[in-house]
Amino acid sequence: MADDSEHRGDPVREEGPRSTTEKDEDIYTQLKNGSLKLYELEKELPPLDAIRARREFIEKETGAALENLGIFSIGIERVVKRNCENMIGTVQVPVGVAGPLLVQGEYAQGGYYIPLATTEGALVASVNRGCSAISQAGGAQVRILHDGMTRAPVFAADNVIHAKQVADWVSAHYDELREAAESTTSHGKMTDIVTYITGTSVFVRIEFDTKDAMGMNMVTIASAKVADLVAEGTGARLIALSGNMCTDKKPAAINGIMGRGRSVVAGVALSHDLIREILKTDAKNLLEVNYRKNLVGSARAGSMGFNAHAANVVAAMFIACGQDAAHAIDGSTCITTVDLTDSGVYIAVTLPSLPVGTVGGGTGLETQQECLRILGAAGSGNPPGTNAKKLGEIIGAAVLAGEISLLGAIAAQHLARAHQQLGRG
Amino acid sequence: MADDSEHRGDPVREEGPRSTTEKDEDIYTQLKNGSLKLYELEKELPPLDAIRARREFIEKETGAALENLGIFSIGIERVVKRNCENMIGTVQVPVGVAGPLLVQGEYAQGGYYIPLATTEGALVASVNRGCSAISQAGGAQVRILHDGMTRAPVFAADNVIHAKQVADWVSAHYDELREAAESTTSHGKMTDIVTYITGTSVFVRIEFDTKDAMGMNMVTIASAKVADLVAEGTGARLIALSGNMCTDKKPAAINGIMGRGRSVVAGVALSHDLIREILKTDAKNLLEVNYRKNLVGSARAGSMGFNAHAANVVAAMFIACGQDAAHAIDGSTCITTVDLTDSGVYIAVTLPSLPVGTVGGGTGLETQQECLRILGAAGSGNPPGTNAKKLGEIIGAAVLAGEISLLGAIAAQHLARAHQQLGRG
Amino acid sequence: MADDSEHRGDPVREEGPRSTTEKDEDIYTQLKNGSLKLYELEKELPPLDAIRARREFIEKETGAALENLGIFSIGIERVVKRNCENMIGTVQVPVGVAGPLLVQGEYAQGGYYIPLATTEGALVASVNRGCSAISQAGGAQVRILHDGMTRAPVFAADNVIHAKQVADWVSAHYDELREAAESTTSHGKMTDIVTYITGTSVFVRIEFDTKDAMGMNMVTIASAKVADLVAEGTGARLIALSGNMCTDKKPAAINGIMGRGRSVVAGVALSHDLIREILKTDAKNLLEVNYRKNLVGSARAGSMGFNAHAANVVAAMFIACGQDAAHAIDGSTCITTVDLTDSGVYIAVTLPSLPVGTVGGGTGLETQQECLRILGAAGSGNPPGTNAKKLGEIIGAAVLAGEISLLGAIAAQHLARAHQQLGRG
Amino acid sequence: MADDSEHRGDPVREEGPRSTTEKDEDIYTQLKNGSLKLYELEKELPPLDAIRARREFIEKETGAALENLGIFSIGIERVVKRNCENMIGTVQVPVGVAGPLLVQGEYAQGGYYIPLATTEGALVASVNRGCSAISQAGGAQVRILHDGMTRAPVFAADNVIHAKQVADWVSAHYDELREAAESTTSHGKMTDIVTYITGTSVFVRIEFDTKDAMGMNMVTIASAKVADLVAEGTGARLIALSGNMCTDKKPAAINGIMGRGRSVVAGVALSHDLIREILKTDAKNLLEVNYRKNLVGSARAGSMGFNAHAANVVAAMFIACGQDAAHAIDGSTCITTVDLTDSGVYIAVTLPSLPVGTVGGGTGLETQQECLRILGAAGSGNPPGTNAKKLGEIIGAAVLAGEISLLGAIAAQHLARAHQQLGRG
Repeated sequence: MADDSEHRGDPVREEGPRSTTEKDEDIYTQLKNGSLKLYELEKELPPLDAIRARREFIEKETGAALENLGIFSIGIERVVKRNCENMIGTVQVPVGVAGPLLVQGEYAQGGYYIPLATTEGALVASVNRGCSAISQAGGAQVRILHDGMTRAPVFAADNVIHAKQVADWVSAHYDELREAAESTTSHGKMTDIVTYITGTSVFVRIEFDTKDAMGMNMVTIASAKVADLVAEGTGARLIALSGNMCTDKKPAAINGIMGRGRSVVAGVALSHDLIREILKTDAKNLLEVNYRKNLVGSARAGSMGFNAHAANVVAAMFIACGQDAAHAIDGSTCITTVDLTDSGVYIAVTLPSLPVGTVGGGTGLETQQECLRILGAAGSGNPPGTNAKKLGEIIGAAVLAGEISLLGAIAAQHLARAHQQLGRG
Repeated sequence: MADDSEHRGDPVREEGPRSTTEKDEDIYTQLKNGSLKLYELEKELPPLDAIRARREFIEKETGAALENLGIFSIGIERVVKRNCENMIGTVQVPVGVAGPLLVQGEYAQGGYYIPLATTEGALVASVNRGCSAISQAGGAQVRILHDGMTRAPVFAADNVIHAKQVADWVSAHYDELREAAESTTSHGKMTDIVTYITGTSVFVRIEFDTKDAMGMNMVTIASAKVADLVAEGTGARLIALSGNMCTDKKPAAINGIMGRGRSVVAGVALSHDLIREILKTDAKNLLEVNYRKNLVGSARAGSMGFNAHAANVVAAMFIACGQDAAHAIDGSTCITTVDLTDSGVYIAVTLPSLPVGTVGGGTGLETQQECLRILGAAGSGNPPGTNAKKLGEIIGAAVLAGEISLLGAIAAQHLARAHQQLGRG
Repeated sequence: MADDSEHRGDPVREEGPRSTTEKDEDIYTQLKNGSLKLYELEKELPPLDAIRARREFIEKETGAALENLGIFSIGIERVVKRNCENMIGTVQVPVGVAGPLLVQGEYAQGGYYIPLATTEGALVASVNRGCSAISQAGGAQVRILHDGMTRAPVFAADNVIHAKQVADWVSAHYDELREAAESTTSHGKMTDIVTYITGTSVFVRIEFDTKDAMGMNMVTIASAKVADLVAEGTGARLIALSGNMCTDKKPAAINGIMGRGRSVVAGVALSHDLIREILKTDAKNLLEVNYRKNLVGSARAGSMGFNAHAANVVAAMFIACGQDAAHAIDGSTCITTVDLTDSGVYIAVTLPSLPVGTVGGGTGLETQQECLRILGAAGSGNPPGTNAKKLGEIIGAAVLAGEISLLGAIAAQHLARAHQQLGRG
Repeated sequence: MADDSEHRGDPVREEGPRSTTEKDEDIYTQLKNGSLKLYELEKELPPLDAIRARREFIEKETGAALENLGIFSIGIERVVKRNCENMIGTVQVPVGVAGPLLVQGEYAQGGYYIPLATTEGALVASVNRGCSAISQAGGAQVRILHDGMTRAPVFAADNVIHAKQVADWVSAHYDELREAAESTTSHGKMTDIVTYITGTSVFVRIEFDTKDAMGMNMVTIASAKVADLVAEGTGARLIALSGNMCTDKKPAAINGIMGRGRSVVAGVALSHDLIREILKTDAKNLLEVNYRKNLVGSARAGSMGFNAHAANVVAAMFIACGQDAAHAIDGSTCITTVDLTDSGVYIAVTLPSLPVGTVGGGTGLETQQECLRILGAAGSGNPPGTNAKKLGEIIGAAVLAGEISLLGAIAAQHLARAHQQLGRG
């Protein structure tokens, strides 16, 4: 633990020095000899004790002191059941705020402080500068272009003729499949089914309006129901509930083209004056940086990301706000565009596949929920779905802030200097 | 804060109820009227007080109670300088352990408990099952195939002839540029420079052996030095220190082909018996799932990720171990292969661009460092670089565990059921 | 001209030795001094004379004897107006036939001789072997999965809110736009409009059933009409009738996912006996070659083509049958799959974006039309569209033949030997 | 045959009406009953007679009259042995010329007439306009950036450790492998070997300087030799001489990044005056078209082609000049860039993987060779390699001409009108 720990919480100290009890010894012995599995501890002990016993076992096994991992305040009753098995504690990820960021969306309207969980020096400061630029320019214009979480089970057909019959059967039974899908959830609505045939593999991409949930679980359960009907109705063998045409947590063109999660676009007009005063550069240089780096450089690199550092903002907001961090992969597939205009530039970011939610997943953890509350987007929206869309719009605007700031810094060739001052070794 | 908070730390309570002081009021007023900026608080107050004041300001501005964000134990003196500006606290991300995972690498040898920071139910349990399978099979074979962090400044040449001259100049001055690059660091060694011309844009991709650091900052500073020399020597204009052919935090074919960070391959032979007993399926089904989902499905989706859920493991280990979470984008570009063999299957994962380090960045935070200690990979290795490579090998093996478990579960069509039991709403 | 030219036609000789006339001299002088442009020759002379005069001018200017270019039999009245400006003659591309290939499609049923225009030694022989395998196996199962040619004009909106309004306007005026689009053609039917927003750029992807035409021209003209209405109705500026989201003559994921032209799948079951007797290998080896080469190799290469040599067959049939050779780029985007079955393997090819037609373009040239006649697919089908679909099915089956043969040859490690025997230096 | 056929050659007529002979009947009977195979005809008859007999057999079988296919002047002795099996004749592809195009390369210097074999109306006219613009602007600057044809055999290793050993073995035996490779050719020089490991698959990418040959055959034969040594030295199993990381005739990022064939860049500065006078537009509009269509549109489409219609020019020149038409797939992977400059724009095209040769393949056919002679690039260069590089430079410049013309036409919104006037139905 760090030197200044007296300022902060320490449950061990609080409780008084714990002496190792007989029961502790016992459990250690059982874990050691394998008669008790690490994951069975919750059956033997209350959650907090189970976490401690497991951590202590790891400490003994590895010789690593793990006291800070054991310091946390989140309520873990639900966490150990729904979010994390074999828990030994938590890591603490620093949260900084940027903003206020003025957002002119359909769901997010007004100024927002942007919580960013990150250990990358200069990131919060950079986003903060972008927030200033946007806010002074009148705010980020944001729109949700599409909204739909997807799962694509894959089936094996006997041959390509059978494959075509499976696809035709799905089309012919659309209504029936939708009813079945929707019978598994009280919230979601099925919005589309598209089939893809590749040889004998038939992919059935099912899309849901998942309201305020990110919705992977909802659509997976619904897809299981649909998949059973398809298998039964066609004789095709269900191979996997996810056939990778969903596409989940992997960069994929299909998400860019069809959309997945919340498809968001955000943009702002920056005047010549504002570019000069806040970004210390000019329109022509901004354009050239975006052109040579984000467009030509990415094209030549065979990249799916045509942006400067969208992933930084998406990942930092996702971790802060209890989103699935692995979704930053699809979520950060962003195209940044800089248009020359008569009065300066119009900069925009397009995020076709941002999977976000404000209920479920990690959104219920206390610290994460507090970050969502900073945005006024915790829990279910009224009407349902509006909170998740609001979160999507704010993330879009924050990515825009990050892009503007970094493009501006590059245009002024300040990048290396900024890193030397603020960065890590 | 959660109901069971009495078991855990709470600095506010510890200190006794704090009454709002005059100074507090004063600061709030200054923040409110803009005479003091949020990022200037550290100039006025000790770090912990600055964090608290900032958090309280956000609470007042947004009406959100943020008490849990304020509960943390990491030492923040260095954090506020190097990792996170405008800090208001930390989010607590649950950490579970999977394992032990038997690893047969060149740097990691033996059994390891894998720390995973995640809120996705079932993930730790799934990886754990994969660890069992691998360990019972004799351990994961792992190799580092390539090791080099890159930065690719982009220059504007006058025309394509000039562009060719710039590339030729770089080749002719390789030694000089290497000396200059290495003069900026006491640790790293420049290992390559490759130039790419696209029209008038010249990208100079500089590769470094960054030892135990992930190394983005090191190579950025070195690249700045190189870039100045190139600009001076050729008259080409430096447009950006990163021209997106690096490629950092974006999925990109160039990383898959040239390698970036630690390029890792991990594999294991699973016997028919083991597949049946642990994975409850058979070799033929494993093969078919990988074929239709990870290969054919990803191909048709236009995906760069030919795997089941590498991102889950990479992101969870990155967050636990203080890696840059946004690097999960490049880090999770994984190809999973399943070979039929006489005795069962050989499953492997190939991660061409895993950017990891054990010094710098978030690795110094107490909770994150404890996770690295669980792996015996905290701080500098002896010789330098061995700890980062060890971490790379372990992540490779853990990704393999995740893939084996999920492919096995899918092959047995357990996915939906597992999610219903363990997942979120 | 070659030694054995007496066996073949030579218009020059036929006409008796032409002496250079005064008019010829005159024209040469005018071309030389620039008072007459090469492309203006058809205004001065009958087509054949214009072609000859142009060829002779090029001969004089370059010193190259071009007598064989001048030997051709196609009727050039229409060619010079519709297919090729500034004509100087034709190149003769050798045509070989493979087959008969037994096809079990919906439009092509029976045995077909496959015309292949190629100069790559071993290609026809290789396809021929594949035809044998398929025919002996009972024929290629083929299906058209989707049928629609596309154009995607791109518009510039004022900002992202305006962009969204443009997309909404298009949706709201779907029927009106369809009517306008269809007013430009007596054949085609508009089947879909999808809009994509990227920053301020709005792409309106218009899809047509173009019947027996490949249809690029038809859909371009229709798109022009639609584009004018969109521009007028929304105030967005039309930037280009093709915004590259069509996507024409470039490899693009959007074509793989949405389909373009005729989307074709073809497959066949090969028994163990047949694999052994014709392909001289076994099922396991076929599977392994496809797995390591077409799936894993292509994945790692960052390729969009997951096949062995689909392009060879597509290009050769396109040139033979008067298709646009540049369309081989999109047309050859093929995924080849090999499934292990109880009785052997099931091999299939999936071609999501094969742009073919049997009327228009180069299909009217005599030699090309003769190739179409070999397939019974020249001109308009009855009902319209059936001939183009038939051609699509046959090409799909022929690609399958090529894949089977090459995979088989590789599996038997015959590739190099075959090339040494049949190939070029 | 067309009405105006009397102006052109017809061997049938020339020879006088052929009456069906007894031998003809005999052969037909044998072909019909299968005792003689179509590909065995050259064993029974002289080449021209074999071609005729085969064509007549196809005519009888299909009922299609094929007289024009039988009219050709190319010498077929070598063709039937090296270029095309089962030949029945040739298709005649119209050739138009554009230019002269002023080229300022290292190998091509001066004005060139560009032969384009195409049936797409407006293409030659369009390229011609681009040639004018370039020539008036002082010529296209062109450079060859890299030169190397590749083959990548794939091996199966026992496991990932073995895979690493195979890669290490290749590195350690580089000189020995080069000697073996070069022992198979009197022309080529091996320039590089790079290995890639994906799971247990090891790809060994061998690169050759193939001088004036396109070189696929040369490098395939050399790779066979190398592959045998690798297999022997390491115990890895050779799966395929081409493991698709070559990558041949498929769009692939590896070719864009590593280069393949001749890597060419061509560019030209266009002044404001010239843009206005020839292209009827202005610099700002050219920039915007390239930005929204070629960069943003292609990015969003998931395309590997960031250009307007490079494939048209590449395919047309490939067919005219006896190149392998299927190579237009890799050859047309082009990035078109438009830079704003003080005096106008600088437009460039980058073609990283243009596989071209001036000896071997279809380059020896009389009509194709005549097209190469128009360019002064037929046969071997002096020194060897200079003719192929010259051809590469000219194709690069011609692609530039095509891009300039089409971007200009789009910028002036002339596309649809041009097609309506010149295009096909």
